Amino acid sequence: MDPHVLVLVHGATGGTGRLLVDRLLADGHQVRAFVRDPDKGAPLAKRGAEVVPGDLTDPDATALTDATRGVDAVAFCAGSGASTGKDMTLLVDLHGAVRTIDAAVEAGADRYVMLSSMAADDPLGSSEAMAPYLAAKHAADRVLAASGLRWMVVRPGALTDDPPTDQVRTGTPRIARAERGDRSISRADVAAVMAASLEADATGVTFEVLSGDRPVAEAVADLAAGSA
Amino acid sequence: MDPHVLVLVHGATGGTGRLLVDRLLADGHQVRAFVRDPDKGAPLAKRGAEVVPGDLTDPDATALTDATRGVDAVAFCAGSGASTGKDMTLLVDLHGAVRTIDAAVEAGADRYVMLSSMAADDPLGSSEAMAPYLAAKHAADRVLAASGLRWMVVRPGALTDDPPTDQVRTGTPRIARAERGDRSISRADVAAVMAASLEADATGVTFEVLSGDRPVAEAVADLAAGSA
Repeated sequence: MDPHVLVLVHGATGGTGRLLVDRLLADGHQVRAFVRDPDKGAPLAKRGAEVVPGDLTDPDATALTDATRGVDAVAFCAGSGASTGKDMTLLVDLHGAVRTIDAAVEAGADRYVMLSSMAADDPLGSSEAMAPYLAAKHAADRVLAASGLRWMVVRPGALTDDPPTDQVRTGTPRIARAERGDRSISRADVAAVMAASLEADATGVTFEVLSGDRPVAEAVADLAAGSA
Repeated sequence: MDPHVLVLVHGATGGTGRLLVDRLLADGHQVRAFVRDPDKGAPLAKRGAEVVPGDLTDPDATALTDATRGVDAVAFCAGSGASTGKDMTLLVDLHGAVRTIDAAVEAGADRYVMLSSMAADDPLGSSEAMAPYLAAKHAADRVLAASGLRWMVVRPGALTDDPPTDQVRTGTPRIARAERGDRSISRADVAAVMAASLEADATGVTFEVLSGDRPVAEAVADLAAGSA
């Protein structure tokens, strides 16, 4: 992906989304952030993002359609969060994602990077508490894979607020359970992985990612080299 | 579809599934029912179905894989029901459906008919109470459409226990809101529509269905004629 493309970020006010916005801006891209709460959007605007108000659960899709028009790429980092019920898992993590995929197709966006979750390939293999959420992520990832867009699905382990290390390990489509170690990765490293995925000339790649010992650029380049 | 094919029915102990089983048996098909509760399976076995024990939320997919082996067609009528929480909507209506689709692909089944719901094309256009459920149905239907199977998606309105009328009206992919009338249809008529859909030589057809004034066979034949 050439520098100075326009990336629409969903979930830009979240823990990982914020860091992705900063990263994309630092890399020379234009960033449009689709933001529900204007108060949370203000700091993004101050840092150089174009903030567009909108809500993924609004029955009226006009704001989403308008926000997606003209973008080169879409990054989905939105999530209903642990404090809301499964209604919101269905409406945001699942259907919100589906709507952004449809909007990206309709707008002719070139590519799409999804922030998914480790173990989303096998929701029932996880704890009872996690399985419903992972079922939503699994289905959203499947809808993306069938969209006709150029796409990558990023599945990180447990997210931490540790500083960036630029050191990760990846597995396509998964990291073997025995090799998962502490199963964590910092949001900053995930943001770097997502930015590199947006910049990679690749599609059809689903991968799990944890903190590790390979530079992000190198790890993502390897994934892209093995892609369609 | 030739007579005497083998149809795997999910949700065979439910209100519509039971009637579908009877209908398929009456039409001369073999029916295999994937049933969680053996007590509820016994009456199906007595009427001539092969009852196979299994649970769509079992992390071990062996029972599902085994049950799907050798079938010509799959019908999905399972649903978590109104009395369970959205966790089960995610695990049964969404992920359970996805698993049966994957199993059908793996087993080389020829075709798949999904019992979906009116308004699943636009979950957020419905009431707040219905939207999360419809989001699950919407995504399951999308995963089916991308599966490579030959498929039809049946989207009935509000289900009643009225006797069969063999009189329906359909809309592809939807019935205009102004024409929806009382928006209901009997489970018996839905079962007849699903059986006819299984028998039709068609794929790529999503349709809404309500009680109406056209014989089921005629209505479904028209849908099939317009299909891929």
